[in-house]
Amino acid sequence: MLNKLYVALIHYPVLGRDGKIVSSAVTNMDVHDISRTCRTYKIKGYFVVSNLPAQQEIVHNVLKYWREEFGKEYNPSRTEALTIVKKASYLEDAIEEIVENEGEKPLIVFTSAKQGNDRLSYEEMSKIAFENEKPILFLFGTSWGLPDEILSKCDYALEPIRFYSEFNHLSVRAAVAITLDRIIKEEIDTRRDWNGSIHKSYWKWIY
Amino acid sequence: MLNKLYVALIHYPVLGRDGKIVSSAVTNMDVHDISRTCRTYKIKGYFVVSNLPAQQEIVHNVLKYWREEFGKEYNPSRTEALTIVKKASYLEDAIEEIVENEGEKPLIVFTSAKQGNDRLSYEEMSKIAFENEKPILFLFGTSWGLPDEILSKCDYALEPIRFYSEFNHLSVRAAVAITLDRIIKEEIDTRRDWNGSIHKSYWKWIY
Repeated sequence: MLNKLYVALIHYPVLGRDGKIVSSAVTNMDVHDISRTCRTYKIKGYFVVSNLPAQQEIVHNVLKYWREEFGKEYNPSRTEALTIVKKASYLEDAIEEIVENEGEKPLIVFTSAKQGNDRLSYEEMSKIAFENEKPILFLFGTSWGLPDEILSKCDYALEPIRFYSEFNHLSVRAAVAITLDRIIKEEIDTRRDWNGSIHKSYWKWIY
Repeated sequence: MLNKLYVALIHYPVLGRDGKIVSSAVTNMDVHDISRTCRTYKIKGYFVVSNLPAQQEIVHNVLKYWREEFGKEYNPSRTEALTIVKKASYLEDAIEEIVENEGEKPLIVFTSAKQGNDRLSYEEMSKIAFENEKPILFLFGTSWGLPDEILSKCDYALEPIRFYSEFNHLSVRAAVAITLDRIIKEEIDTRRDWNGSIHKSYWKWIY
């Protein structure tokens, strides 16, 4: 269902430039841009996942400034976007928080700029997001991307964006934006009526 | 045609928070993220438009570092993305450079997070981009967006992304990514064969 979608930006474990597992640095822009994108697509929670306390501290400071300090007055829409940001030390913690919220484990979706086996098209993923009752968690990697140990925990893997272009080095900020747009598009709200068929409402006009 | 698409990120004239015309600051991330997105979608040129010499200097320094200095060795794909970045003082300079390259004036496309009259859908814009022989220049605003004086110079205006969401404050980096993806999608190359019908080729596999 579109009202149970989550996003996690993974800083550990991710691949480094030499293909080994590293813990990448959190960037201010990843917190801001991706929270604004997630809020625009009505994502329920955006987890910034980092196992390093000093990196969690950076996220904490960004959130504090914009949620409680000067930023709140300066740009309220940015404050609004950041309300959906959650900190997590490990992917497992993010999953646990979703289980607490939703009462069940989310379907977990792997993304990558690289090709692999059994990749799902965006049309197929969109259908699942619109019709499946379970919560869904989309994972995005920083640095050189998500490793196989993350893939092995996922229910689905999405096909890479523009893999057939001779250059497809999108920033993770652009990749999140394109992925959510391909899956959710202009859809605002989707709910099932009493006989189980999908009822779409552009609630802004109706309510 | 998809091989004559251009993007310009406008820093002047743009709207400030109070609705007056301002000249906004160039950010390092706007140069990087948007050039990577443009390169991924085979955009021919990405113009960073700022009338302030000090701001142009920032763009110059980013390009120099990544094209000629340490960045080139550290991350060659980022260097590759930045090859399409061009500096311009005013929109008119960007248009002039396109006229020099292509031998004709581009169709100019306005984008905004706000609604307005005669907005084109992405399907309509995509059809124009695939079939029209003229170059096309897509304009994106920084700060609080593009003013009417820019709109008056445009041939088309695109509908806002997720206008019907109660929150649609995307970063310009996300807006560029979603806009180009909606228009170009996974298309790699489009050319017309001898009888004028469109021949699409995934050249990576064919050549």
